Amino acid sequence: MKFCSHCAQQLSFKVPEGDNLPRYICDSCGMIHYQNPKIVAGCIPEWEGRILLCRRAIQPRHGLWTIPAGFMENSETVEQAAARETREEACAKINIAGLYGVYNIPHVNQVYMIFRGPLTDGAFAPGVESLETTLYEEADIPWSEIAFPVVHNVLKRYFRDRQHGDFATFVDTVEPRRA
Amino acid sequence: MKFCSHCAQQLSFKVPEGDNLPRYICDSCGMIHYQNPKIVAGCIPEWEGRILLCRRAIQPRHGLWTIPAGFMENSETVEQAAARETREEACAKINIAGLYGVYNIPHVNQVYMIFRGPLTDGAFAPGVESLETTLYEEADIPWSEIAFPVVHNVLKRYFRDRQHGDFATFVDTVEPRRA
Repeated sequence: MKFCSHCAQQLSFKVPEGDNLPRYICDSCGMIHYQNPKIVAGCIPEWEGRILLCRRAIQPRHGLWTIPAGFMENSETVEQAAARETREEACAKINIAGLYGVYNIPHVNQVYMIFRGPLTDGAFAPGVESLETTLYEEADIPWSEIAFPVVHNVLKRYFRDRQHGDFATFVDTVEPRRA
Repeated sequence: MKFCSHCAQQLSFKVPEGDNLPRYICDSCGMIHYQNPKIVAGCIPEWEGRILLCRRAIQPRHGLWTIPAGFMENSETVEQAAARETREEACAKINIAGLYGVYNIPHVNQVYMIFRGPLTDGAFAPGVESLETTLYEEADIPWSEIAFPVVHNVLKRYFRDRQHGDFATFVDTVEPRRA
């Protein structure tokens, strides 16, 4: 961020008066340009005990498997965002069955909000961002080809919780991988 | 948003290729400037059965009462954000006791995430954004002077749930007030 989106003049990176963190501030019009974490909304789509995964047709992690998830848009609810991503990536309809996992990923300024989402009718197909979509039994999940640590974590936890039928909402934090 | 923060040239508002929503796109360098909902992190601070409220020293809703809450910052977790806001607005320390309410407020592009937060030692005082801070018994909450509908809603729900000691996480949506 170099220039003011309001007046096109140069930005400084400094602590505004009365604040305690540096922000991008316009030297000319004074506008402060805040940067905040983004919400990634997703779901665990289930049909007859199997989980619907998508093989990514886009970067990052092209070719690896994930649950439907993506950036929440303005003017929608988190549930609508999760359902939209499932429609876009897997051409599937879900019934939102409750918020399951909230994951802080502070090193990339994201918060994942993952719902349980049984499919409404069992129909699915790859969307434009997916190479393929497959319903997996727990025993067949391609664990070594999962796209993101947060997806690996939430699926492991889901299968464990499913044994007891207890899907209480949890909050967890994903730390960066060691180099 | 009028100018590109990367190259200072003019922005257009149009649907990028392969997308389905209009975005601010730089006519010169091609950068797409996405806009997404912000997370407001807060807590319900409790001490010996009473709830700590802050009377706002800032706009909007100057002079009205609220729970500690504010925009989550990059590089922090939602829990850290809730604890920081409580420190800043009420000079109080909390133990995060679990995520309680998630509120979509789509007409202002916000998602509130409100934790239960018993005070660690009962100490509190007005921060720079508060005129005063007070521990209220349920019967004494100034319901007609609560700053935001989301705060009114979560406090009503909290007192109801407290009767049964069941604070399961919920997701709700706040619609705009009718004109």
